Amino acid sequence: MKAAYYTGNQQFELKEATPETLHPGMVRLKVAYCGVCGTDVHIYHGKMDQRVRMPQVIGHEVSGEIAEIGEGVTGWKVGDRVAVRPLQPGAEDPSDNGQQHIGKNLKFIGIDTSGGMQTYWNVPAYTLHRLPENMPLELGALTEPLAVACHDVRLSRLQPGEHAVVIGGGPIGVLIALVARHKGASVLISEPNQTRLALCQTLDLPAVNPMATDLVNEVEAFTNGAMADVVFEVSGVAAGVQAMTQLARARGRIVMVAIHSEPKPVDLFRFFWRELQLIGTRVYEPEDFDEAIRLAASGKLPLDQLITQISPLEDIQAVFETIDNNPAGMKYLLQCTT
Amino acid sequence: MKAAYYTGNQQFELKEATPETLHPGMVRLKVAYCGVCGTDVHIYHGKMDQRVRMPQVIGHEVSGEIAEIGEGVTGWKVGDRVAVRPLQPGAEDPSDNGQQHIGKNLKFIGIDTSGGMQTYWNVPAYTLHRLPENMPLELGALTEPLAVACHDVRLSRLQPGEHAVVIGGGPIGVLIALVARHKGASVLISEPNQTRLALCQTLDLPAVNPMATDLVNEVEAFTNGAMADVVFEVSGVAAGVQAMTQLARARGRIVMVAIHSEPKPVDLFRFFWRELQLIGTRVYEPEDFDEAIRLAASGKLPLDQLITQISPLEDIQAVFETIDNNPAGMKYLLQCTT
Ligand SMILES: NC(=O)c1ccc[n+]([C@@H]2O[C@H](COP(=O)([O-])OP(=O)(O)OC[C@H]3O[C@@H](n4cnc5c(N)ncnc54)[C@H](O)[C@@H]3O)[C@@H](O)[C@H]2O)c1
Ligand SMILES: NC(=O)c1ccc[n+]([C@@H]2O[C@H](COP(=O)([O-])OP(=O)(O)OC[C@H]3O[C@@H](n4cnc5c(N)ncnc54)[C@H](O)[C@@H]3O)[C@@H](O)[C@H]2O)c1
Ligand SMILES: [Zn+2]
Ligand SMILES: [Zn+2]
Repeated sequence: MKAAYYTGNQQFELKEATPETLHPGMVRLKVAYCGVCGTDVHIYHGKMDQRVRMPQVIGHEVSGEIAEIGEGVTGWKVGDRVAVRPLQPGAEDPSDNGQQHIGKNLKFIGIDTSGGMQTYWNVPAYTLHRLPENMPLELGALTEPLAVACHDVRLSRLQPGEHAVVIGGGPIGVLIALVARHKGASVLISEPNQTRLALCQTLDLPAVNPMATDLVNEVEAFTNGAMADVVFEVSGVAAGVQAMTQLARARGRIVMVAIHSEPKPVDLFRFFWRELQLIGTRVYEPEDFDEAIRLAASGKLPLDQLITQISPLEDIQAVFETIDNNPAGMKYLLQCTT
Repeated sequence: MKAAYYTGNQQFELKEATPETLHPGMVRLKVAYCGVCGTDVHIYHGKMDQRVRMPQVIGHEVSGEIAEIGEGVTGWKVGDRVAVRPLQPGAEDPSDNGQQHIGKNLKFIGIDTSGGMQTYWNVPAYTLHRLPENMPLELGALTEPLAVACHDVRLSRLQPGEHAVVIGGGPIGVLIALVARHKGASVLISEPNQTRLALCQTLDLPAVNPMATDLVNEVEAFTNGAMADVVFEVSGVAAGVQAMTQLARARGRIVMVAIHSEPKPVDLFRFFWRELQLIGTRVYEPEDFDEAIRLAASGKLPLDQLITQISPLEDIQAVFETIDNNPAGMKYLLQCTT
């Protein structure tokens, strides 16, 4: 089997490896596709070197087939097609408030432990979600980011007929927009990148460039003065944080999807003045994976248009270099079995 | 009748005045007591000179008796004892989302219009809430700030048995703590001022000094490691904003009560990481006034201990100077009729 090891310093090493021992409760997957996440690019850039243990196989956006079943695992058989929910809850902390998916001792599989950019990958059986027969495994590899979007839209309490603004039209922002539109909302995206704006147009998603126009005016026009019921901050930049409080109507909900590694100035006066709400969201719960698979299988979302490129695992180094040079691409998939 | 006019430059002028014309839909109150709010002190300090129209009578924390009924007003009679909900909704804006109490064109009576620091005061009949016979009018003047607290606790969705932390033990923070405790929560106050800490002790409200101890440790101990279900930020200072995200457990609700006139750095990472929620709250809705009156009338809150001083309206200048010199005082009432 092949495995791609991140060795630090923007380097991957592709090696012949032997599959790891299959422990009880685990399942060995034959990985079909593994998507490249923004976090993987972060790791590649050395920004998480204290968290990963080099040399380490990374990757957590996986579809595949079950190749072998570990001791004590029931409900699954060899050949089953699955997506992986890459969360490994640890011991519960009282401050977790019962929220396993964001627990203090949670491990993120593929970051804190070995990931999916290899031919065979052992994961706990409880992380598996079944993919329908008719769903291409390429789409299966989008389950993880799509589940993020389903989680964010669910926690936003978005209702049909509401207006939503998505700040940041990267992969996560566009998926959120697609899920929100599918739920019956009118969605406007704010995104400065021309290539990504063009993709929004292809997807029939109204989008504006906040550098070229007055975003507040645009949202006013888009909503007939009502402003947004829900704002998703998915840009991760200070300008997004500044905009989010301006775009929401009274009692509007602002969903904090982006990861802001440093504290940023927030217009707290506006939270008071208009009784705004901020809702932090992180990854997903099992039901979000179920919903993501249902949505992807329904064929009602143009997910295949989000796949920029599919490359063999062997090309991993070139793929990460391409992503670096083409930040406007959306999802890059690594094909891990041929 | 007497009226106290704010004339700018930290000055009030007490004058003999004639009652204003009573327009249809309005009621003339004989003001019993008018509390001094932090906002009034702000006005006194000249910080709202563009908003008030000097010379202007200010004040909005009023109890009184109906002295005269305007044309078209039904349901009220001379002698009825009332508190005033000092909100005058304007034309509805689409971005108001139906939230009259925070509408774009809302006027705050006693700030944007003439206030209660005078013998007779005309207010729209729809602002009135009836006070029970047994309720002293001194307590009636606390209805407005108590309604703020009821609103904040209601929007926090606080449940019996939950842990709440109140950052800032001023009048509003202490009222929030009292309402939250009455709802069955365990409440801890964070307050640096020694006099206010001592008052908390008198009221049997657990309180700590965040300058003298590690607040995170204190909340950990207070909650047996569970951390706070609800955090009320009522301090209005950067240190409060910094603390609030540290004290909440996963999915904890942080209620933004304080008015932060400038954007402040917020730990948005923590909102994402622990799926925290921020809930902006402003003034009150009619039901919060009803609840405040019910609570005050029940005698179950030690409200009289929050009244620092009652002074005749004639002493208004001295009262504001005292407040300036004694920031640890709580509620100062002006007695407007003798
Ligand atoms: N909450 C979670 O669990 C979770 C999961 C996945 C990703 N994320 C985070 O979500 C964010 C988006 O992820 P992504 O993979 O789509 O990242 P991305 O970097 O591809 O997308 C961000 C987009 O924002 C755009 N942008 C930049 N400045 C902007 C501005 N001023 N206004 C509007 N848009 C602007 C960029 O052009 C880019 O297209 C990241 O912060 C990521 O870390 C969070
Ligand atoms: N949301 C609303 O509708 C509404 C209504 C009334 C008042 N307010 C706001 O609520 C806030 C409180 O009002 P108040 O009248 O009680 O004001 P206040 O100034 O009397 O109370 C603030 C308290 O915070 C304390 N404090 C200072 N630094 C602190 C720290 N680091 N940690 C903890 N506490 C600290 C102060 O000692 C003070 O006791 C103000 O910002 C006010 O503008 C909001
Ligand atoms: Zn990811
Ligand atoms: Zn007030």
